[in-house]
Amino acid sequence: MADTWLNETLYPDWGQRFKTARELARVKSDFQDIGVFETTSHGRVLTLDGVIQITERDEFVYQEMLTHVPLLAHGNAKDVLIIGAGDGGVLKHVLMHKGVERAVMAEIDGEVIRLSKEFLPGIGGDAWTNPRAKVIVGDGIDFVKKAPTGSFDVVIVDSTDPIGVGEVLFTDDFYENAARILRDDGLIVNQCGVPFMQADELHDTSVRRKKFFPFVSAYVAAVPTYVGGYMTLGWAGKDPKQTEVSVEEITTRAEAAGDIIAKSEYWSPRVHVASFWLPPYIAKHLPK
Amino acid sequence: MADTWLNETLYPDWGQRFKTARELARVKSDFQDIGVFETTSHGRVLTLDGVIQITERDEFVYQEMLTHVPLLAHGNAKDVLIIGAGDGGVLKHVLMHKGVERAVMAEIDGEVIRLSKEFLPGIGGDAWTNPRAKVIVGDGIDFVKKAPTGSFDVVIVDSTDPIGVGEVLFTDDFYENAARILRDDGLIVNQCGVPFMQADELHDTSVRRKKFFPFVSAYVAAVPTYVGGYMTLGWAGKDPKQTEVSVEEITTRAEAAGDIIAKSEYWSPRVHVASFWLPPYIAKHLPK
Repeated sequence: MADTWLNETLYPDWGQRFKTARELARVKSDFQDIGVFETTSHGRVLTLDGVIQITERDEFVYQEMLTHVPLLAHGNAKDVLIIGAGDGGVLKHVLMHKGVERAVMAEIDGEVIRLSKEFLPGIGGDAWTNPRAKVIVGDGIDFVKKAPTGSFDVVIVDSTDPIGVGEVLFTDDFYENAARILRDDGLIVNQCGVPFMQADELHDTSVRRKKFFPFVSAYVAAVPTYVGGYMTLGWAGKDPKQTEVSVEEITTRAEAAGDIIAKSEYWSPRVHVASFWLPPYIAKHLPK
Repeated sequence: MADTWLNETLYPDWGQRFKTARELARVKSDFQDIGVFETTSHGRVLTLDGVIQITERDEFVYQEMLTHVPLLAHGNAKDVLIIGAGDGGVLKHVLMHKGVERAVMAEIDGEVIRLSKEFLPGIGGDAWTNPRAKVIVGDGIDFVKKAPTGSFDVVIVDSTDPIGVGEVLFTDDFYENAARILRDDGLIVNQCGVPFMQADELHDTSVRRKKFFPFVSAYVAAVPTYVGGYMTLGWAGKDPKQTEVSVEEITTRAEAAGDIIAKSEYWSPRVHVASFWLPPYIAKHLPK
């Protein structure tokens, strides 16, 4: 199988391909087709419906940016809700923050969790058994519907693109409930695709979030295997100032939070601040 | 030919692929294999020895960052030398700066210029006939050897990776002469690959530049079809302060230089400043 190529099928006419040494798993769950491959260039790779979700070699970029930015921008997050993120990486990074008392994770597909624990054990690490963590196999949209008003500080949505199983996480219904369960200084971030290829995803979901949050923005990360230039992480909250915290203050917060700075390979206080400074070709897709 | 895929061959086990509608040109020049393809996703694409050099749809990122950053960081560049860049895009962007009195471009492969003018006319635009431009078909290393001491303010190297025809542009001999022909506040930038995939390229060439320049650094750009996360542009000069100019001062300089801000889609004064704030996984490859 030395010459087997895994061709990503996210876009019909452009994409990346990996030389795979071995197919480790291929499971048709109740929700999606899950694949785990051993590649020669990026370690193990997880795919959902043919789209790359995570690789062992570059997952640090995505996890650090999806976690440290909202938590340190908030500055005092105690209750964190994670939707999706079945590989456990976001959970692990959230738990690096000592101030977090409770990290609830709702992943709809138990098979993603099972396969991640078996084939990608380093990504979640010992987060799975951390006493501050609560892992629920269940529907994220259902969870936010039932959760008490004002019960979370930060919501992190690590979903697929708004097709297939992830679609409901981009709806009015979801954002309305997310706004309700967040405290007054709460905020939500969610993956918003690669705007060079998927500008509508950033635009349409930003417009939708704007119905329920006074302040809507986005920040960027250059994830190597999320090809096509910057990916955007959507941002919604009440206070624009949360996206304008200084390098000095982010440094102070990161030092108080734990071993964030020393353990980060992509995130840094400066990278954090700069991630909100969007190139014009991205900024133009945000609602005025 | 609806289902023909163009597979980039830069890395042996990972890369991007484009669905091509048409092969417009394939020429074996004295230096390299040149291809021009019409793709359905990125417009026209230029390849050299199988490696993507430029696409019509995302060239703005590379051109803006390779040009506006060094010119505005310098602040008073009158004589600019461009090595390579046969598509004409860097030349066009350099000439947007009103203060530039002379832009000399030395491209070794006349066939790249000829094919770019024919198939990618929008990239160089009317730069080719601008009276401030001097286009030389010739060896860049030869040019810097013969150019007078202290005759340039900024040197921009837009080369291939350090294999094949571009290799000499990464040598001691080249950097020594580049340092000699630059004025006291002069600086040189050069494309340094994608460090997630080619960390040695950034490291080795930075060490080499350090022999001839007191200050060596790098800055980043997320070029969509330079896949693998950030690419780095190597930086060498005398004064670290050139890489630390404030957003306000860059704005003032850009407004004085011409219509830079309104015409840029990736570059902005903030993006400029932040491009020097390297993620730790990149910064670690620079010499101490």
